[in-house]
Amino acid sequence: MSHPVSPLAPKALAALPPIIGVRLATAAAGIRYQDRTDVLYVAFDQGAAVAGVFTRSKCPSAPVDWCRRNLGVGAARALVVNSGNANAFTGMKGAQAAGLTAEIAARVADCRPDQVFLASTGVIGEPLDAQKFDAVLADCDERADAFAWPDAAKAIMTTDTFPKLATRTAILGGVEVAINGIAKGAGMIAPDMATMLAFVFTDAPVTAAALQPLLSRGADKSFNCITVDSDTSTSDTLLMFSTGTALPRGAPVIDDHRDVRLRSFRRALDDLLTDLARQVARDGEGARKFVTVDVEGATSARSARRIALSIANSPLVKTAIAGEDANWGRVVMAVGKAGEPAERDRLAISFGDIRVATEGARDPDYDEAAASAYMKNDEIRVRVDLGLGRGKARIWTCDLTKAYVEINGDYRS
Amino acid sequence: MSHPVSPLAPKALAALPPIIGVRLATAAAGIRYQDRTDVLYVAFDQGAAVAGVFTRSKCPSAPVDWCRRNLGVGAARALVVNSGNANAFTGMKGAQAAGLTAEIAARVADCRPDQVFLASTGVIGEPLDAQKFDAVLADCDERADAFAWPDAAKAIMTTDTFPKLATRTAILGGVEVAINGIAKGAGMIAPDMATMLAFVFTDAPVTAAALQPLLSRGADKSFNCITVDSDTSTSDTLLMFSTGTALPRGAPVIDDHRDVRLRSFRRALDDLLTDLARQVARDGEGARKFVTVDVEGATSARSARRIALSIANSPLVKTAIAGEDANWGRVVMAVGKAGEPAERDRLAISFGDIRVATEGARDPDYDEAAASAYMKNDEIRVRVDLGLGRGKARIWTCDLTKAYVEINGDYRS
Repeated sequence: MSHPVSPLAPKALAALPPIIGVRLATAAAGIRYQDRTDVLYVAFDQGAAVAGVFTRSKCPSAPVDWCRRNLGVGAARALVVNSGNANAFTGMKGAQAAGLTAEIAARVADCRPDQVFLASTGVIGEPLDAQKFDAVLADCDERADAFAWPDAAKAIMTTDTFPKLATRTAILGGVEVAINGIAKGAGMIAPDMATMLAFVFTDAPVTAAALQPLLSRGADKSFNCITVDSDTSTSDTLLMFSTGTALPRGAPVIDDHRDVRLRSFRRALDDLLTDLARQVARDGEGARKFVTVDVEGATSARSARRIALSIANSPLVKTAIAGEDANWGRVVMAVGKAGEPAERDRLAISFGDIRVATEGARDPDYDEAAASAYMKNDEIRVRVDLGLGRGKARIWTCDLTKAYVEINGDYRS
Repeated sequence: MSHPVSPLAPKALAALPPIIGVRLATAAAGIRYQDRTDVLYVAFDQGAAVAGVFTRSKCPSAPVDWCRRNLGVGAARALVVNSGNANAFTGMKGAQAAGLTAEIAARVADCRPDQVFLASTGVIGEPLDAQKFDAVLADCDERADAFAWPDAAKAIMTTDTFPKLATRTAILGGVEVAINGIAKGAGMIAPDMATMLAFVFTDAPVTAAALQPLLSRGADKSFNCITVDSDTSTSDTLLMFSTGTALPRGAPVIDDHRDVRLRSFRRALDDLLTDLARQVARDGEGARKFVTVDVEGATSARSARRIALSIANSPLVKTAIAGEDANWGRVVMAVGKAGEPAERDRLAISFGDIRVATEGARDPDYDEAAASAYMKNDEIRVRVDLGLGRGKARIWTCDLTKAYVEINGDYRS
């Protein structure tokens, strides 16, 4: 798409190191876009343990069905992702297209189709012509190398204005292991499973049994804490592949997510997932401001989260932030409509460090000029203290601008 | 406000007949707006039975607190409404301002303060200077007449682009009775209690005990079926006043909402409330299209309603409609995210009479040109059949345009 790069994009792309056992190639299948890549092929030559978290949509895409079914099968040997067509709501033909894609990739990777994982992103409801992958994937395995991370992140973009990459290292049993991740997503972003697509790779020898709870909990603290527009995709997919190729270097095999040796790894993974999730919010369609909503003093963490989401998803709060207006009245409104315990007379609201409301009324020291100056920042923090308990939550989002409407009024036609 | 009149506005304002026992006057207090009226005073010289439905916000405005407290007191003698300032989240001072307003009005109307009903709409969190009402209301009772309906509807507007009025007649015990209503609301409109303010008046001798369930149920079928932006106001207020002045003409006193003689009255009231609610959706901020979402075949009415609201509140569905794009994939997404029972392979989606999807995939007879032509209409109907049960629901909304963002990014500053 030809939208200008988000002003909230990171200044530089993260430089991802090679992970032994992971090779990547991209290709242009012309599924929807011209003059750009739209297919990502990833080979796991020695196989990889897989974990996955998927959309909770009741109408998931065919690739989501496919991945869910094959998660338990065993080692992954390949991943194929396409952009431009989500292969969602395509009925029996969609399932057939997913199956055919896996068959084609299995021939290329010399494995079984159920060892191929799939993800598709783009328009919903259009039949996906999987036959195209035959010619496109043919030379991908030959071409795939350990360095194509930036290309990989670009190939999976749709309305994204910048590719999203992150990397971390962790110590596992005294050995350094790597975690690389790429993601895409800009609209139709909301919990649960906020990102549309994210793929994480590691050489740490963590089995699928241990990887799945690590990934699920990590997603709860990262991708499930962002929202762009409250719309949840049919295709949201977070897959993590662990090649175990740090084993020869002395990293231990970890089979239980409670293993104390996972401490550094877990922290690095959580950090990487949060990094990617925040990049998605920073690329929210039409976003000009990155917004952190912090709710504390709620009766429970769950209640805090609901209130934070009510604020982060409120069109009136989001448009006020776009207008650089410290309109805390709309924050009150969003707190009130969440339906969670709240007492007007105990509520305090701040923008950044500027407290605008306290004890159910405007702060007596409220300085409109200071608040207005703060709202001109690229990054805005909205803080709400309910004064009732100890529950807290943080949600990341972005503002709602005319560009969002423009992008989404023009996307398909 | 200086926004152009919604293209969805009714061609002509409804002409409301006098209702004996109801006199209206408007005034300009300069609370926020210049060169327009912002205060409505209504006198019920012979008193009126009152019923009310209010916002479910946990942070309601001071006037909402006031009205709730006084609903049970007995006959209403006056109603005072101001626009420009919602007197919400104004703490103890807000409650005092409401009390002072009622005291001033009580002197004017020669009644007790608890016989005065109040509503305020506008900016949240600004202190309301009720002292202003002293001078402003002074001559209102003298000036009040039975004909000022259009002026009344105008005085309560905020971002509304047209005044909202409706009238119906009903037969009660063989006697014709009248029901008049006015409403305001354009943004921060969502169930529950979608309108910000609506006031209904009748000469039918229906007691408060009978009026309340009639009004509550009527609201469920009307104001609670519209949404503009999913944001619920702190101030939503629907009040109904029954003067009983049709009694001398032979209308019977009705004390039980189940009384069979109420049939015509109930139908007329429901119809009037729906008329006003639809006018509010038609004046949704920035609206260019009026949208009816019909969901059927759900497992229950409640489930159908949730799915319909998920569709009607989806920014991606609303921007697609603004872009005249028959993007049914986004409707699938919104069905999927509602979390209600849905089976992809039984789902059918139509825009108007054009079925675009059936049995989990694009309709084989789908004609994109016909669908595109349909999307150019001012009124769009989105129909979803889940194919699971008999639950159905209808929600009214509008599209999401750049003008919405513009209006709400500029409202306060």
